[in-house]
Amino acid sequence: MNLRSRNNSIGFVPTMGALHKGHVHLIERARSNNTVILSIFVNPKQFAPGEDYNRYPRYIEKDKVIATDSGVDILFLPSTDEIYPEGYKTFVNVEGITDLLCGRFRPGHFKGVATVVLKLFNIVMPHRAYFGEKDYQQMLVIKSMVRDLNLDIEIFGIPIVRDDDGLAMSSRNVYLGREERVSATSLNRALKVSREMVKSGEMNAQKIISEMERIIKKGDGIEIDYISLCNPETLEDIKIVDTRVLVAMAVRIGGKRLIDNCIVEVK
Amino acid sequence: MNLRSRNNSIGFVPTMGALHKGHVHLIERARSNNTVILSIFVNPKQFAPGEDYNRYPRYIEKDKVIATDSGVDILFLPSTDEIYPEGYKTFVNVEGITDLLCGRFRPGHFKGVATVVLKLFNIVMPHRAYFGEKDYQQMLVIKSMVRDLNLDIEIFGIPIVRDDDGLAMSSRNVYLGREERVSATSLNRALKVSREMVKSGEMNAQKIISEMERIIKKGDGIEIDYISLCNPETLEDIKIVDTRVLVAMAVRIGGKRLIDNCIVEVK
Repeated sequence: MNLRSRNNSIGFVPTMGALHKGHVHLIERARSNNTVILSIFVNPKQFAPGEDYNRYPRYIEKDKVIATDSGVDILFLPSTDEIYPEGYKTFVNVEGITDLLCGRFRPGHFKGVATVVLKLFNIVMPHRAYFGEKDYQQMLVIKSMVRDLNLDIEIFGIPIVRDDDGLAMSSRNVYLGREERVSATSLNRALKVSREMVKSGEMNAQKIISEMERIIKKGDGIEIDYISLCNPETLEDIKIVDTRVLVAMAVRIGGKRLIDNCIVEVK
Repeated sequence: MNLRSRNNSIGFVPTMGALHKGHVHLIERARSNNTVILSIFVNPKQFAPGEDYNRYPRYIEKDKVIATDSGVDILFLPSTDEIYPEGYKTFVNVEGITDLLCGRFRPGHFKGVATVVLKLFNIVMPHRAYFGEKDYQQMLVIKSMVRDLNLDIEIFGIPIVRDDDGLAMSSRNVYLGREERVSATSLNRALKVSREMVKSGEMNAQKIISEMERIIKKGDGIEIDYISLCNPETLEDIKIVDTRVLVAMAVRIGGKRLIDNCIVEVK
């Protein structure tokens, strides 16, 4: 409250740690016109049963250095007991859009995300908050929640940061072995092809998806959870690409789950 | 925000209108140390399918007079479209305690209550909010939500106000015909008997419930939804009354649903 009332603008970057260049990009955007608060909290409620909560990468000392070097003003590192004390029982759900895409494969995931982000917003009381567009569906869930629940917070979606080989930055990339990493670069190649096909006038979504599948399956040991061409607001599949479209996908490589996406504009 | 920052304390009384002496009591409590904002919004999301949303009593002009006369500073009368614009999809649920008592008979009711109250809190930004203890379960749901979601709001539960015949004040009492009204007074009589039985040393919850049922069933055309002796925090039924207990009930008289409750202390 004090920070907020002192004519200060608070920019908030909520993370699960294992900070990488994508996070640094969020921090830099936040720094340009705010006091920056960064939170690190590996949220147990957003891991579906059987997912990698215990194995999720935790590098807190390295994270502190990255945060400080990137210009974070305040680091917020709550414990699990602080966020979910005994008897905790309140959950927020954004209905509809959380049942699609990743929601079909990660039951309860977005309910956990919405709940923890609302709690962090209520604790931090930021004016602006910054989310990476790699997690496009998450960003859309947060934007919907903020609008629906009348929160006085501006949500910024920040473009995906890619490594030199085109792989979208993700904390989970550290899991990948060398060959898996090579396979993973097919995601970005498939996105590029989808963009080119649309640009060349292809309007049949299924044809584009089939071509993307062909490219991705070239990689060793890749299993596709989904590839979707969908409405960027409702996330509902589209069949004919005659307007702005979200191309989104999730794959598993040796059991590690990776996601990527891009927005394609139709001229 | 301006009101909140001007060293002003904001007391909030959210209602569905059809104001009665119970509401006036809430307003008077709020007035004692706040600028008072009262909202009137008949919330469609908290009526279960088949309930009385369309028939719910609406006396807005009379309500304005009562609110002004009682010392309300600001009246907030949002429209349904303002609260639930097209595409609305975010809901808050307090799990566990909303499945018990009235939750068993009104599917979705408390999810609708928690959602609209959170939205009203985010719009009004009060320091304190006032709820009647007649809706004990509702008050408990709101207190749990406020604690779980880190809201900086103090929740006050205000004791039930009863009419001369002992009937707890409720907007729905206007539905009752003269004979139904007489039948309805059995609720308060049954609560009194439960208190006396506990005071006399009766510890068997089922015996107390049976006696209450006998009293209530004397009234014409009363159907009992539930009578429960339960833990005032978890709302779970108790069998042996050896500590503080919530005695809560819901009945239907000619299709109109009435609730009442009291806390009984064990000496």
